[in-house]
Amino acid sequence: METLTNEILSQTIRIRPEESHKGTYGRVCLVGGNDHFGGAILMATEASVYSGAGLNTTLTDSSNFVSLHARMPEAMVADFTNHAELTDLVSSANTVVVGPGLGTTSQSLSVLQTVFDTVTPTQTLIIDGSAITLVSEKSLKLPQANLVFTPHQMEWQRLSGIKIADQTDAANETVRQQLGGTVVLKSHQTKIYTPTGSYLNTAGTPAQATGGMGDTLAGMIGGFTAQFENQTNAVLAAVYAHSAIADELAKTQYVVLPTQIIHELPRFMHDHQH
Amino acid sequence: METLTNEILSQTIRIRPEESHKGTYGRVCLVGGNDHFGGAILMATEASVYSGAGLNTTLTDSSNFVSLHARMPEAMVADFTNHAELTDLVSSANTVVVGPGLGTTSQSLSVLQTVFDTVTPTQTLIIDGSAITLVSEKSLKLPQANLVFTPHQMEWQRLSGIKIADQTDAANETVRQQLGGTVVLKSHQTKIYTPTGSYLNTAGTPAQATGGMGDTLAGMIGGFTAQFENQTNAVLAAVYAHSAIADELAKTQYVVLPTQIIHELPRFMHDHQH
Amino acid sequence: METLTNEILSQTIRIRPEESHKGTYGRVCLVGGNDHFGGAILMATEASVYSGAGLNTTLTDSSNFVSLHARMPEAMVADFTNHAELTDLVSSANTVVVGPGLGTTSQSLSVLQTVFDTVTPTQTLIIDGSAITLVSEKSLKLPQANLVFTPHQMEWQRLSGIKIADQTDAANETVRQQLGGTVVLKSHQTKIYTPTGSYLNTAGTPAQATGGMGDTLAGMIGGFTAQFENQTNAVLAAVYAHSAIADELAKTQYVVLPTQIIHELPRFMHDHQH
Amino acid sequence: METLTNEILSQTIRIRPEESHKGTYGRVCLVGGNDHFGGAILMATEASVYSGAGLNTTLTDSSNFVSLHARMPEAMVADFTNHAELTDLVSSANTVVVGPGLGTTSQSLSVLQTVFDTVTPTQTLIIDGSAITLVSEKSLKLPQANLVFTPHQMEWQRLSGIKIADQTDAANETVRQQLGGTVVLKSHQTKIYTPTGSYLNTAGTPAQATGGMGDTLAGMIGGFTAQFENQTNAVLAAVYAHSAIADELAKTQYVVLPTQIIHELPRFMHDHQH
Repeated sequence: METLTNEILSQTIRIRPEESHKGTYGRVCLVGGNDHFGGAILMATEASVYSGAGLNTTLTDSSNFVSLHARMPEAMVADFTNHAELTDLVSSANTVVVGPGLGTTSQSLSVLQTVFDTVTPTQTLIIDGSAITLVSEKSLKLPQANLVFTPHQMEWQRLSGIKIADQTDAANETVRQQLGGTVVLKSHQTKIYTPTGSYLNTAGTPAQATGGMGDTLAGMIGGFTAQFENQTNAVLAAVYAHSAIADELAKTQYVVLPTQIIHELPRFMHDHQH
Repeated sequence: METLTNEILSQTIRIRPEESHKGTYGRVCLVGGNDHFGGAILMATEASVYSGAGLNTTLTDSSNFVSLHARMPEAMVADFTNHAELTDLVSSANTVVVGPGLGTTSQSLSVLQTVFDTVTPTQTLIIDGSAITLVSEKSLKLPQANLVFTPHQMEWQRLSGIKIADQTDAANETVRQQLGGTVVLKSHQTKIYTPTGSYLNTAGTPAQATGGMGDTLAGMIGGFTAQFENQTNAVLAAVYAHSAIADELAKTQYVVLPTQIIHELPRFMHDHQH
Repeated sequence: METLTNEILSQTIRIRPEESHKGTYGRVCLVGGNDHFGGAILMATEASVYSGAGLNTTLTDSSNFVSLHARMPEAMVADFTNHAELTDLVSSANTVVVGPGLGTTSQSLSVLQTVFDTVTPTQTLIIDGSAITLVSEKSLKLPQANLVFTPHQMEWQRLSGIKIADQTDAANETVRQQLGGTVVLKSHQTKIYTPTGSYLNTAGTPAQATGGMGDTLAGMIGGFTAQFENQTNAVLAAVYAHSAIADELAKTQYVVLPTQIIHELPRFMHDHQH
Repeated sequence: METLTNEILSQTIRIRPEESHKGTYGRVCLVGGNDHFGGAILMATEASVYSGAGLNTTLTDSSNFVSLHARMPEAMVADFTNHAELTDLVSSANTVVVGPGLGTTSQSLSVLQTVFDTVTPTQTLIIDGSAITLVSEKSLKLPQANLVFTPHQMEWQRLSGIKIADQTDAANETVRQQLGGTVVLKSHQTKIYTPTGSYLNTAGTPAQATGGMGDTLAGMIGGFTAQFENQTNAVLAAVYAHSAIADELAKTQYVVLPTQIIHELPRFMHDHQH
């Protein structure tokens, strides 16, 4: 298992080519946020926008449109219960993030199933939060796509069937192979299991231990995979950047809020581009 | 009566252990905010989030969901008139704050009674604002829990039956013993009566004399008691920090707004952890 | 006619007494903001809060509650079409500001008439914007109160019957005496006609020439008259501070936004208290 | 084709005359923002306000009122489906911006047609985004007014019939003459075709390649044309300022958000006035 350093940033965050336009930097769909957990999809969206994705559309409960626009006019919105719009928007995305604040109701399940039925093998699909729980509980068939799972340890237990105490690298890697794709196993030292190797993230701080951190990371992975060609490196760089920014802020803060990490992204990414 | 100093901060605000997660820092439920006083529960929630509580859920009138998310995507929301959700969420919290902007209608009373019927002796319950008025007017039976009352002098008169002019330490302490728990008696020099002693807060500034200060303090006590083991010290540290931050800001400001105090919390707590 | 200097600030902005509470700094009701001009009452409210008034309640169209709370949780809200609440809240205020974004519909007129029917001689009533237009068009009988009118030149023409070209000091003063109270005649050099003399404000900058400046000034006059005993000085100090802060900001800005002036108030008032 | 330099700024951004009021700096109507793309009209409005236009009214879907006010109380709002209000407000404007987030439904078309039926030859009309698409698809007859088109290359293909590969200066200029007015052809190096010459904008950075940049530029052109007499120079200065501010921010940021450019406008314009 390799330990991540800030080299992953300079390997991943390319200097933007002069001749480019917003389409060059990808189109991200973020799907989640029911009437209780709207903040989760707001933070995921904000993270994707601030990481530089070209175009961002948020599919959520319509009750979240106003708060999203009040914080983030840069994102577009649609109602995730509108099947036609959900299908159209997911189809046209490079990266889809599903799960932040999605919930686990029958409506949540229906939205998730539509996403799974729509994505294609050329797309990257980040499966986060409630979406992982739904996959586990309903034994959903996973779609063919570049899958990225972002469970914390309990969600991984549900998804993999491996109890937390038994989540060894070997056991985790075995299930990752069965699932396909990449697993970001979040804990105080996050491990990332990818098709080309496993990585340990030693960056990060207990000041990050507050609600919304996972939603923010999911949005950053969305923004990074939409922009950067090597999808594995994009995931690794997002995980590392998320923790490294928190480490910087924790030098002067007892707790680091998710939205504070987000707002540092443009500067941090500038300092580590190559 | 002992005078609080910044020693209470270093005695209380522990350096966060490396191996921890958001669950380590507690789960806070904040209950209040009717259709007129929504700002009160927004400020209480914001204070709890910025003080570092691990998870925060706000139970309020549904008309406050959008403004809460627009300011504070880090918090989750539920409708306080939904009895099942109120019961579930209060049950699963470490600390419950009830009262900021709750109002005194029959709906307010019903919400408060449900909170009282639900909390258990292992939980901390902060009773603030309208909730104190309702307890007094309706002679509500107090629940078995770690109770913290945060009245200003008029609310204390209603609750204790002691007229403002007669609110001596001895009289106040006698009623505190009858009530059980801790009383934070707010005035220009707040006094805190606890099971293990009484304390005087000489920090604070008239620049704080503006609406929302009490709601902010209630939220901070929520965040501190959720995180720090010694519940009495957590209350004392929250009271002291609230005033000490205001003192800092008042060096350059004629009035100090509640939300300005809140935004200083991560830095202030960092500087006083031990 | 006396020219205002920053002496009016130190004469007015008292150092806050140690033993005080939010009641010491007054209770302001701000009435206005229909479904088109909601921003006006938001800015007036924000100005009153940032100038340090103890308690602020905004009576407005209910469609403005969410945006108000999203910006300003420190203020309370009520629906200005609720006659009982409007009457109760106006009755309990020290200062009432009526007019910012009120509009000139029959609903606007009804709200204004209720305010006029409710205020009493011991209260200060600031009549701004649409309220001035309604008084002029409907020949409303003015209530007995400490009246402050804040017309721009065209509104003054409507109210006084004096055409803009004929608005000499003598003519203006004559009408002021008929009206009673104080007239703040806004132009690029605002003049203030009071029962005890007339004043010229030479502070101010064309960078202020943008929508919302008047609403902001009305809110500041609300906050200052609620806090400071000499009501004439409170008006003069608010007018001067509004322009002097703009002058400071205009050293580095082509246009100065109303909300930027508001956010400087706590610092500016601190630097000029005495 | 002349290359723009910062001379266009000092030629355009006049020092504001002392004796002036908000009417001196024009009245802008911004029309757009359906229930999916509300953020677009929010950014356009914010850009117009921060560039210093005297009065700004946003005609949009009513679901966008709250988010607009939460961000920008300085602007007024009206429902773009209210034909009478749309007609009245467009009639009284100096500059009308139509298109940001307008969409291409039959409702969008109806709104656009009303704007076209209402504007008169003395007004400036900026036709942006969806409005360009609608003009192209529906072969709408253009109104007599000072027209400014702000297409990106694909929108220009639709409008002009010239395929992107064939968009030479000569071909573009020929169609511009047929259309009348000014064409701002947005790409990584924007070209501006005007009745009095063609200009190349070499300022700008790939950090700008993110959603909302075009909406922001349209709003800036609205604000500049409302304030500055020479309408061609106003367009050129807005285009140049938009890129030049982004260049400054890109020195420390990997991505530059539209709202960040907007917030720099007052300072930037101050530094380049003459």
